Amino acid sequence: MTANTFSGVLVPALTPFDSNLEPDADALLTHCRWLLEQGVDGLAVFGTTSEANSLSLEERLSLVEHLLDNGIPAEKLMPGTGMCALSDTVTLTRHAVEHGCRGVLMLPPFYYKAINDDGLFASYAEVIERVGNAALSVYLYHIPPVAHVGLSLELVGRLLSAYPDTVVGLKDSSGDWDNTSALLNEYPSLATFCGSEVFLLETMRNGGAGSITATANINAAQIRQVFSSWQNEDAEELQAQITTTRRTYETFPTIPALKAVAADFYDTPSWRTVRPPLLSLDADEQKTLVSALAQVGFNMGA
Amino acid sequence: MTANTFSGVLVPALTPFDSNLEPDADALLTHCRWLLEQGVDGLAVFGTTSEANSLSLEERLSLVEHLLDNGIPAEKLMPGTGMCALSDTVTLTRHAVEHGCRGVLMLPPFYYKAINDDGLFASYAEVIERVGNAALSVYLYHIPPVAHVGLSLELVGRLLSAYPDTVVGLKDSSGDWDNTSALLNEYPSLATFCGSEVFLLETMRNGGAGSITATANINAAQIRQVFSSWQNEDAEELQAQITTTRRTYETFPTIPALKAVAADFYDTPSWRTVRPPLLSLDADEQKTLVSALAQVGFNMGA
Repeated sequence: MTANTFSGVLVPALTPFDSNLEPDADALLTHCRWLLEQGVDGLAVFGTTSEANSLSLEERLSLVEHLLDNGIPAEKLMPGTGMCALSDTVTLTRHAVEHGCRGVLMLPPFYYKAINDDGLFASYAEVIERVGNAALSVYLYHIPPVAHVGLSLELVGRLLSAYPDTVVGLKDSSGDWDNTSALLNEYPSLATFCGSEVFLLETMRNGGAGSITATANINAAQIRQVFSSWQNEDAEELQAQITTTRRTYETFPTIPALKAVAADFYDTPSWRTVRPPLLSLDADEQKTLVSALAQVGFNMGA
Repeated sequence: MTANTFSGVLVPALTPFDSNLEPDADALLTHCRWLLEQGVDGLAVFGTTSEANSLSLEERLSLVEHLLDNGIPAEKLMPGTGMCALSDTVTLTRHAVEHGCRGVLMLPPFYYKAINDDGLFASYAEVIERVGNAALSVYLYHIPPVAHVGLSLELVGRLLSAYPDTVVGLKDSSGDWDNTSALLNEYPSLATFCGSEVFLLETMRNGGAGSITATANINAAQIRQVFSSWQNEDAEELQAQITTTRRTYETFPTIPALKAVAADFYDTPSWRTVRPPLLSLDADEQKTLVSALAQVGFNMGA
C-alpha cells in the first residue's frame, strides 16, 4: 500500500446502453459525475456489475477515453482490465496506466478451468512485465462465484512478494468473510476491499481499505457514511441500514435490479436496458422491487 | 441439416505460439494443411483446444485471413466465434460468413452465471439477426465443464424452431452420453457432433453427424477411419483403438499434452508453448507422456 493507494468506497459503475444495445457514453458520464458528487472515492468502471464482460475491448477503450475527455479525473479511475486473452488484458492495462488511471482491477483469465496457481501467477506476471510501467497499480479481483477461477491466499502472497510496488490491493467478492478475514490477517500491507458493503464495518475494524460494491451505484452516500463513521458510536446502526438495502435488492437479479432503480432515478427508461445474456426486470418484478425498497425507506437520491 | 452441413471428423486445430507468445500463423497453416491431408472433414479453428479464449479478436481475424489467403478452403472452416461480449461475437461471426466459412461454432457468452434459457436465447438470436446473412450456419457449442454455462435441450429446441435454416448443428462436449443421446433423439434434423471421439461409433449408430474432437490434432487418420467404417465389421475394434489413445493422453493436461506430441512430430520445440494461464508440460511429464503413448502403439504420423 502506498500513499496513492485507493481507500474508501468505490463503485463498479453500471454501463447504460441505448435501445440498440450500444453503450451510452453520455449517460455513463452523467452517472459517474453523480457518483463522485455523492462522495465515492473511486470509479471501478468495467467491473462485473458494469457488464464489462459483455463489452468489447474497443468499447471499453472508447468509454474510458470519453470519461477522461470530459473531466472525470484519472485519479478516480480503477478500470477493470482482466480479460480471457493475455493480449487483451495487456492492451487494456497499458491503456489505463498510460492515461493516468490510478489503478486497475484485474480479473484472472476465466475461461479455462482447473487452472493452478502457477498458471495464474504466470498470467499476472506476464501482464505486469509486458506493461512494464512503474506507475501501474494492480488490484486483484477475486470473484469465484462468477469467474469460477479464484485467487488462493498463497497466490496472493506470491504476487505480493514478486511485485510489491505493483500489486497493491484486492477486491474480495467471494462472499466468504473467512477468506476476507484471512487476507486481512495475512497481508496487512495489501489494500483489501470487501466486494459487498454488508462486510464494510467488519472490514474496516480488521484493517481493510473499504468496499468496491455494486450497490454504491444506487446507495453511494449511505455506504460512504459507514466508511467515514466506522469508528463512531452509530457505526453499527448505519451498517444495519445499508445491509437492509442490500439484502432487499439482492433478492432480484443484481444488475437488472440496479439498472431499474437507476432508470427511475434518472427518469430514463433506456437505463433499464441490459445486454444479453442478461435480461431486464419485467414489469411485475420492477413493481415488487420498487415497493420492497420503499418499505425499507430507500431513496436513491437521498 | 442441409446438403452443405458439415459431417465427419472436425478438428479444433491447436494454435502454435512463438517464443514471445505470439500466434505463429505459418505453423498453424502447416498444421491445418497436414490435418486436411490426413482426411479431416473440417477445421474448427478457435475451439477450446485452440486456446481461442486466450486470443484477442484481432488475433483471430488475422489468423483466419492468413489461412484463407494461403489456400485453406473456406468450405473447410468452422471458426469458433462465441465470445463473452455480444459485439465481439457479432464481429467474428460476420467476418467468418463474409469470408465464406461454411459454418461457425458458437459458445454462449460465458462470464455471467445463473443465466437462464431466455437470456441465452436472446444472445444467440441477437447475434443471428445482427449478422443477418442467409449464408450463416451456426453450430451450437455445449461445453459445461469449461464454460459453466450450458445449453439445455429445451433451449436447443427453441433455437432450432426459431432459426431452422441457420442453426444446423451442435457440438456436445458435456462428456455426458445421456445428453448426446437425448439430442440425437429429440432433434434428428440437427447435425450433432460428439465432443470426444470416445463416443464416435455410438454417435454414428444413433444418427449423429460425427465428432469435433481435440485428439484429431494428433490422431486424425485413425479417428477418420472410425467415421468412414462405422457400419463395417471392424468398427468396434477401430473404436477401441482410438479410445485407448484418447484415454492415454487425457490423463495429462489436454492442450499442453497435445502440443507436446505435435512438437515432437514437427520437430519444433516452440510448438510446446501455451499461453498463460495454461502451462507447458514439464520435462518429466513429457517423458511419461511419450512413453505412455508408445506403449499403446500410438504414432502421430501413422
